[in-house]
Amino acid sequence: MRYALGIEYDGGGFLGWQRLTPHGVESVDTLQAALEGALSKVADAPVATTCAGRTDAGVHARCNVVHFDSEAGRSPRNWVMGTTSLLPPAMSVRWCREVGDDFSARFSARARRYRYSILNRPVRPALGRQYLAWTRKPLDAGAMHRAAQALVGELDFSSFRTVHCQAPHARRDLQAIRVTREDEVVVVEVQANAFLHHMVRNIVGSLLEVGDGSRPEPWIGEVLEARDRRCAGPTAPPGGLVFLGPLYPAACGLPDEVTLDAPCAGGASVPSHVPAS
Amino acid sequence: MRYALGIEYDGGGFLGWQRLTPHGVESVDTLQAALEGALSKVADAPVATTCAGRTDAGVHARCNVVHFDSEAGRSPRNWVMGTTSLLPPAMSVRWCREVGDDFSARFSARARRYRYSILNRPVRPALGRQYLAWTRKPLDAGAMHRAAQALVGELDFSSFRTVHCQAPHARRDLQAIRVTREDEVVVVEVQANAFLHHMVRNIVGSLLEVGDGSRPEPWIGEVLEARDRRCAGPTAPPGGLVFLGPLYPAACGLPDEVTLDAPCAGGASVPSHVPAS
Repeated sequence: MRYALGIEYDGGGFLGWQRLTPHGVESVDTLQAALEGALSKVADAPVATTCAGRTDAGVHARCNVVHFDSEAGRSPRNWVMGTTSLLPPAMSVRWCREVGDDFSARFSARARRYRYSILNRPVRPALGRQYLAWTRKPLDAGAMHRAAQALVGELDFSSFRTVHCQAPHARRDLQAIRVTREDEVVVVEVQANAFLHHMVRNIVGSLLEVGDGSRPEPWIGEVLEARDRRCAGPTAPPGGLVFLGPLYPAACGLPDEVTLDAPCAGGASVPSHVPAS
Repeated sequence: MRYALGIEYDGGGFLGWQRLTPHGVESVDTLQAALEGALSKVADAPVATTCAGRTDAGVHARCNVVHFDSEAGRSPRNWVMGTTSLLPPAMSVRWCREVGDDFSARFSARARRYRYSILNRPVRPALGRQYLAWTRKPLDAGAMHRAAQALVGELDFSSFRTVHCQAPHARRDLQAIRVTREDEVVVVEVQANAFLHHMVRNIVGSLLEVGDGSRPEPWIGEVLEARDRRCAGPTAPPGGLVFLGPLYPAACGLPDEVTLDAPCAGGASVPSHVPAS
């Protein structure tokens, strides 16, 4: 039987998703190792997972999705409750669904969404610092939003991938990008069919140079055209980044928050835990 | 010269505001000790502070306000930047203003506002867990809101104060209380002229019993009438509580976020750092 799980995590204390680090070393301080360890205990047999978004060290997820196969005969409720009870406090399992054998958390996903949050004020964050990048230079969110629209479309994002990126090509379909200001916080939300390694953080690092006035708005399009990582801005730090989750066709039968065109795809169940008034 | 400071903190790693613990022991693991240590270094002389809200261990603040006297001749910018650079990462100074010698962060405040956030879903929080309480029992936020209205007015809150509360009497003017649901999070916001020790957490602990159906809505009014702590619900845990800040008369000349009737009192500059969609 194949199962899909929705996983939430605070990535601050982990070396990233993948059990095998970029240096080829197996690490227990990874989200994948923690999850597979807990699932294997619930199954009483080894469990291997495949995930929708292999997030980097320090990056968070509101709803990453994994699939795995098991003949242990546990119910979805057992997988959710049993696994969560065995995970470290920074991880929890939001839901579990039985899926068809042809479902892949990675390859069935039609889109992925990320959110990057930057506190923009003279002093560094204290409350919520776990989930915020910070810059004291005043940012023009409107200019960042306009500049970012040059990235929409099926384009070559070579300028925004890290040199360590192993993808065979750099074309991705960036479906939407939006930059807004919510009081002291500038938020970048972006959706694409898939992302290259460091792509969101490199886009944000470049948009920050437009936002603080170091670069003009058309510069983002010029960086894209150059297809050269050396032309873009620096990689923004990981802590401000949250993988909101993948989106799947409705036929996969997954919860609304990860279903394309669902009434509240990704909108439900968001802890807005810092006071709004 | 007297100064007022706006202070933001994640109280998770501290024993509370007061340098002197309830057991009469001086502790360096308090917010007051950390702040006074940093201010004293900036002033190059001992600095003592008085604050608007002496929050308990584990309680957070978006904008607590303190005042202190110093003849060190530092500018407001020096106090903000210098002090923040010397504080632990969980604390920062939002702003500094010169104030009149008759200003007291504690006694000039006309109102204080708190926000309590409860994640309400089957599994515990991972993302944002630093700022959320959690219950898996489904909560009826509407019932909690209606029940809470029995607490509005200048009333005797003896049932909601801890036995350790040292206030001479238990009358407080509770000006507003609101319970709302934002997807998976139930939020209680409350404003009063002042609060008794553990008052917000005891009110929330009681409202949770109405929310999960253990008690009927009119029970909250009955608990109030009883003037007996043993009648109320348990004290809700500290991590879900944020002191939004005090409110002062406009004549004090402080920032809008702590000024009565200011256009965006308390509304500005709120990191909503967990993704909203």
